[in-house]
Amino acid sequence: MSSYTLTEVANILGAEVVGDGHRLVEGIRPLDQAGPEHLSFLHNPKYVEQAVESRAGAILVHSADQLPGRDLLISGQPYLAVARALELFHPRPRPETGVHPSSVVADDLELGEGASVGPLTAVGRGVQIGAGTVIGAGCVVGDGVTIGKECLMHPRAVVEDGCRLGDRCILQSGAVIGSDGYGFATVDGVHHKVPQVGIVVLEDDVEIQANTTIDRATMGETRIGRGTKVDNLVQLAHNVQVGEHCLLVSQVGISGSTKIGSHSVFAGQAAAAGHLELGDRTMVGARGAAMKSFPEEGNVLAGFPARPQKDWMRSQAALARIDGLRKKVQQLERRLRQLESSPEGEKS
Amino acid sequence: MSSYTLTEVANILGAEVVGDGHRLVEGIRPLDQAGPEHLSFLHNPKYVEQAVESRAGAILVHSADQLPGRDLLISGQPYLAVARALELFHPRPRPETGVHPSSVVADDLELGEGASVGPLTAVGRGVQIGAGTVIGAGCVVGDGVTIGKECLMHPRAVVEDGCRLGDRCILQSGAVIGSDGYGFATVDGVHHKVPQVGIVVLEDDVEIQANTTIDRATMGETRIGRGTKVDNLVQLAHNVQVGEHCLLVSQVGISGSTKIGSHSVFAGQAAAAGHLELGDRTMVGARGAAMKSFPEEGNVLAGFPARPQKDWMRSQAALARIDGLRKKVQQLERRLRQLESSPEGEKS
Amino acid sequence: MSSYTLTEVANILGAEVVGDGHRLVEGIRPLDQAGPEHLSFLHNPKYVEQAVESRAGAILVHSADQLPGRDLLISGQPYLAVARALELFHPRPRPETGVHPSSVVADDLELGEGASVGPLTAVGRGVQIGAGTVIGAGCVVGDGVTIGKECLMHPRAVVEDGCRLGDRCILQSGAVIGSDGYGFATVDGVHHKVPQVGIVVLEDDVEIQANTTIDRATMGETRIGRGTKVDNLVQLAHNVQVGEHCLLVSQVGISGSTKIGSHSVFAGQAAAAGHLELGDRTMVGARGAAMKSFPEEGNVLAGFPARPQKDWMRSQAALARIDGLRKKVQQLERRLRQLESSPEGEKS
Repeated sequence: MSSYTLTEVANILGAEVVGDGHRLVEGIRPLDQAGPEHLSFLHNPKYVEQAVESRAGAILVHSADQLPGRDLLISGQPYLAVARALELFHPRPRPETGVHPSSVVADDLELGEGASVGPLTAVGRGVQIGAGTVIGAGCVVGDGVTIGKECLMHPRAVVEDGCRLGDRCILQSGAVIGSDGYGFATVDGVHHKVPQVGIVVLEDDVEIQANTTIDRATMGETRIGRGTKVDNLVQLAHNVQVGEHCLLVSQVGISGSTKIGSHSVFAGQAAAAGHLELGDRTMVGARGAAMKSFPEEGNVLAGFPARPQKDWMRSQAALARIDGLRKKVQQLERRLRQLESSPEGEKS
Repeated sequence: MSSYTLTEVANILGAEVVGDGHRLVEGIRPLDQAGPEHLSFLHNPKYVEQAVESRAGAILVHSADQLPGRDLLISGQPYLAVARALELFHPRPRPETGVHPSSVVADDLELGEGASVGPLTAVGRGVQIGAGTVIGAGCVVGDGVTIGKECLMHPRAVVEDGCRLGDRCILQSGAVIGSDGYGFATVDGVHHKVPQVGIVVLEDDVEIQANTTIDRATMGETRIGRGTKVDNLVQLAHNVQVGEHCLLVSQVGISGSTKIGSHSVFAGQAAAAGHLELGDRTMVGARGAAMKSFPEEGNVLAGFPARPQKDWMRSQAALARIDGLRKKVQQLERRLRQLESSPEGEKS
Repeated sequence: MSSYTLTEVANILGAEVVGDGHRLVEGIRPLDQAGPEHLSFLHNPKYVEQAVESRAGAILVHSADQLPGRDLLISGQPYLAVARALELFHPRPRPETGVHPSSVVADDLELGEGASVGPLTAVGRGVQIGAGTVIGAGCVVGDGVTIGKECLMHPRAVVEDGCRLGDRCILQSGAVIGSDGYGFATVDGVHHKVPQVGIVVLEDDVEIQANTTIDRATMGETRIGRGTKVDNLVQLAHNVQVGEHCLLVSQVGISGSTKIGSHSVFAGQAAAAGHLELGDRTMVGARGAAMKSFPEEGNVLAGFPARPQKDWMRSQAALARIDGLRKKVQQLERRLRQLESSPEGEKS
């Protein structure tokens, strides 16, 4: 394991040293696991006390005021600096370039400089793989696929025929790009397959995580915008269009032909029905499910069916008190009955 | 790309030409993407205007009245005709027959005429693969598996030991047929595995899509009826029985031993608890979850726990107004208090 | 198929014979499928009648009183005895030991006695595989992985770099152990990947079922405690800590850094948000979602957001009656209006 002076680390991370720039660190650890040889980090002010007590040699923080007297790295973006420090201390080993002899690749493969295809991987005809891209073990890349530069396919990821990946895309293990969409023409109760002849396009810097499935378009493209990150076990149906820099958290499901604007977030197990339009910066809370379009920008939605989060919270609160409401109504009825049966009531 | 006259296409699709039967078309495209060399289609009357403006050379429609003056193909089942046209213009390339030399197959493999096993696929002992079936790259077929005629296994699909597929079944990438059921005998808080010694049977014309899992029966069979289509990331537990021509949409989960009648539909993320009986033509709406049996035919269910959709919609509507109800009760209470405290009220 | 006398079976199962210990049985079947040559079983008193009518040669039961006059095996733990009988009658065939010649393994592989690596499997550098462990076809085992004794990896399971499995762990097909966690540092709307440099540890006797994904820790460990069993299509995020002997049923999702105490149960499609603490013996019902910590032992939770099951059931019941409540309030209002408009009301 390499070690670096704080000044060296600061230069690489774009941070500023407070304290001893000559101090050596050889790794990055959470506050409670760091020793004097480690850099640690503090994002969240509620852990200041833990930081004070930490044995870490140096700490990445937002502001020097938080930890007076310690050796610090100051960064305006401490979490991004942690990401950079993790890259520094855990450089990804690069596999040997070229095609592993156990793999089966068509003879027309265009393999970019420094790219590699791991063992036991099958690559079809007419495939282009960009410079520096790493295809892991046990993957399958179909006919006519294009993969950009500096991509990474983890073991056993699949890209089916004709799909296209931009540069710096990452597929985690078991991800399936370009499975058939769920399209059937039903006649007299029998479902006839509608051939799915479109493709999937992942723009640059897209990451698709483990065992997530993205269906090819019936015709045309299913498209995932630049910089969008999709967690594990997510389902994106045929002809879905996801904008740029979106976050789709685990187990989300988006039905066919729905369009999601850029910078949107779907929290865990959220969903959207088919053929909807959701504007830029739409947020759907955990388990929320958009069942109609919300084309305006910036909606914050929750619940099933999803509605503005404030409305949902109000009805959730009311639901929690519903039993009290029921009792209140019973009591009012008793009081009313008493009034009705009073002599004056009877007279009326 | 081949081109066809409208009359040729009409004959293949079982449609009728209105207009110029000699017109050549070389592909099928959506209304907004079609040019004069393309066939397009109109299912939904709300797109008539788009069809009028489309540059498509010809349009598949239900009735000639919809688009006077255009070259048309008339079909009583226009969506089915689209499916047929997609097959016509996008014929699936057939891989070379036989076993790819990189694959590992037992020497007792019975491989039907015209069938093929793609690269880097493992096939166990005692396996039968029917005529015309295509096993893709990176698949695993366990010992004693039987696969019918004209099936298609996409890359990296798995059929574990002893399972049986009928004719014309399709497995999308990452589908797992015959994983162990979730069965444990718990004694003093420790869970002991119950061996799962049954199998999975897919009847004819079943399609199982990407990364869906179907567990083998503990004993006996997990069975998916003829013509049933199962979308991505669905879970079907041990001993589940799904009837014929059902649709199970993405991320549905059906618990152990539940029986679902024929022609039933589970919309996205719907579910059923274990050991239930659901009659033929049961519909469960998106996110609905059947928590008890509904053995009668034709139930339309929604919500969690699922109840008749009408009841569910009524309580959803009431829930949306619950805050208003609460305020109304407060107001009634004030008015009642006023009455109670009026001189006549006090007398009573 | 081997056959055994009831006495032999009783000795192996730790059960007691009532009736003819010399009777031969050659398999175990459910009550309705068993013939005179089979052992069957009765767990649930509601099937006593079926047991009486069963043609089974012998029946495993909890108490001899349940089925007078039949040949029986009596066990205090009849379901565990069924598990043992299934093992007896369906011994798992052991593959040939050693590495299949089609597999690609690094030359420093430490392979324990009797262990085997199936066809078309890739094993990285610095891997230890314990005695008696079976790695199936098409699996991928990353660099630096440690797998204990008597484990079983079904076809196409993946264990990524550096992860550790204890003894007797089982991975079903398509399971992914050690995919990257979903960690991004967002700056000006752009999501920068945070390298995920931790690992996943599965303690002894853990089973992870088909297409389930377990993300490696950002730093440190994602850990699944001894004896825990995880069903299909479950998502366990980075740094999750699951205690011992838990059950996580199909399609459950646990968000990052959440800790689940031992002997807890998450029913189907349940979930927990991130950074929560759930005490030992927590039960979360089907579709329940813990959105805050419940650190005490033994909570029984339901609903979204999850609350004590009793509260949830009460509000579900009230919700089902909400339409009635609304009508009651309308009626009260009418009666109140009548009182208010009576001569006495007007006077006040």
